[in-house]
Amino acid sequence: MRTSYAVGVDVGGTRIAAGLVDRKGRTIKEARTLTPVAAGPFGIVDTVIDLITDVSAGAHPSEIAGVGIGLPAQIDFLKQTVEFCTNLPLAGVDVRSLIMSRVRHPVTIDNDGNCAGIGESRFGAAKRVRDFVMITLGTGVGGALFLGGEPYRGSRGLAAEIGHMVIRLDGPPCPCGGRGHIESFLGRPAIAVRGREAAEAYAAHAIRAEAGGDAANVTAESVINAALKGDEIARTILLEAGEILGEALVGIVNLLNPKLIVVGGGIGESCDFLVRRAAEVIDEKALAGRRDLHVVQAELGNEAGVLGAAALAFDEHDSREGLHR
Amino acid sequence: MRTSYAVGVDVGGTRIAAGLVDRKGRTIKEARTLTPVAAGPFGIVDTVIDLITDVSAGAHPSEIAGVGIGLPAQIDFLKQTVEFCTNLPLAGVDVRSLIMSRVRHPVTIDNDGNCAGIGESRFGAAKRVRDFVMITLGTGVGGALFLGGEPYRGSRGLAAEIGHMVIRLDGPPCPCGGRGHIESFLGRPAIAVRGREAAEAYAAHAIRAEAGGDAANVTAESVINAALKGDEIARTILLEAGEILGEALVGIVNLLNPKLIVVGGGIGESCDFLVRRAAEVIDEKALAGRRDLHVVQAELGNEAGVLGAAALAFDEHDSREGLHR
Repeated sequence: MRTSYAVGVDVGGTRIAAGLVDRKGRTIKEARTLTPVAAGPFGIVDTVIDLITDVSAGAHPSEIAGVGIGLPAQIDFLKQTVEFCTNLPLAGVDVRSLIMSRVRHPVTIDNDGNCAGIGESRFGAAKRVRDFVMITLGTGVGGALFLGGEPYRGSRGLAAEIGHMVIRLDGPPCPCGGRGHIESFLGRPAIAVRGREAAEAYAAHAIRAEAGGDAANVTAESVINAALKGDEIARTILLEAGEILGEALVGIVNLLNPKLIVVGGGIGESCDFLVRRAAEVIDEKALAGRRDLHVVQAELGNEAGVLGAAALAFDEHDSREGLHR
Repeated sequence: MRTSYAVGVDVGGTRIAAGLVDRKGRTIKEARTLTPVAAGPFGIVDTVIDLITDVSAGAHPSEIAGVGIGLPAQIDFLKQTVEFCTNLPLAGVDVRSLIMSRVRHPVTIDNDGNCAGIGESRFGAAKRVRDFVMITLGTGVGGALFLGGEPYRGSRGLAAEIGHMVIRLDGPPCPCGGRGHIESFLGRPAIAVRGREAAEAYAAHAIRAEAGGDAANVTAESVINAALKGDEIARTILLEAGEILGEALVGIVNLLNPKLIVVGGGIGESCDFLVRRAAEVIDEKALAGRRDLHVVQAELGNEAGVLGAAALAFDEHDSREGLHR
């Protein structure tokens, strides 16, 4: 049966969003909430189940192809297990079985970056592009590789951890335990640290104001909001982040020769000037692969993860049923 | 017609090797010479033609499927053009047409790292492995990506420039013009600089002895030879290189989740302890993809490039003739 809807869930380090999505990528019903990090793995799983139940009410169960869930984790895609998870306590938790035992539909889990990439590929900035790289700048830095028209997941499904490539030997600590990784420069915590330093050292009034006047409360969003209102100090912090992003992407361009790079995640989506600076660095420093390359912002915003997770659920349903998309 | 032989040519920054190779990867006749860098592009092309003519004499022309040539350059594989070349003056030179006009056989050019990867895939350390990464440590640092059983060349054939990924922002200059690339730490010139510094600063006798007693003449091979004879200073230099290689490969493992990493090139092939150190760093620092990973030395030594280039020529011949390998 050709079902009409799928449920997509995007579990982030900060918030969880779910949507009932049709085959054209339109969201029929959506729900979101903060991620209950302190509630532990089962609290997080319960919250996901509540959101799925909520949005599923928008359709008859027989119309729903399945549930796709993007997690900020390394997923063994074939075994459908959570192998590693930096920002949430989900490693080793059988998320899929726990959820499938409580909802009426087949569940597929994937890395959140892969889901965002599938979303942009099907409905957004990367439509009809066979070879592209998605990088998401959020609490963590993740991404997706599309090589030859399909998501590339590596030998066990663990690939595309773009945030965990070394760009400064012996550099700052990364939440994963490593040092000098891309995420240690470009994730929200790293931007927040730079903002806090500026608020303390240079009395960066605009950044401090966005944090309610207290430098200790500065977040990445304080910096972004101040920059978007024209504050030069905040803008400089984010332009420097754009340069580092560019240096990291030089390596990706030289390694993978993609046709397109899509920059998403909360930071990538809100800061066009950061993405433009990264594109300039690539154009200046990458080898021959720079010539034919486009660097763009993600188009689907926060929705990429939910839409991509839903597209994944449709794909899994259709391949079970022997249908082609 | 199912031809019996192909000519493979491996053009390096230091030497050029050619071989007449059969379908099982046995070399029937071989020839090699130093790369005449000072003779300019046409001198290099003439040398390649002489070597092809030389080894071709080992078979009747009708038995030869074609000529494959690996170049230390970024190749647009579809257009068969040389887009960028750090160590030889070949960028923009129509190498393929120049050679094809003088030899009797179809010519296919590819990046030298890709050829080495094809060689190891068909006849060496990576037989029957679908997802692997080859990295070659020589004058330059290059490599190959095999994803899903095939060489992955990117959107235009320029991929797999593993040597030109940033691992230290604002790091030492790289021959390509960039800074802090993997090649700027691990290519022969970088190892030679470290050896020279040691020979000057610590009177590293063994390294100096390998260079005929003069610190100014120390090369990467002086360091390797001293290390292989048990010199601790030389060994330390190469173990540090192994650590840097490991850090770089952590990023590759997290990005691509390969099943196997093959370390080749002159430095990778002669220093098993360097490769083992890199494997230890990966095992310590990579995310979940480390668990199922093997890190090995290349098996074909100097022959990988020639054998891979010949295998490429066979493949191109067979696909022209509609044969399957």
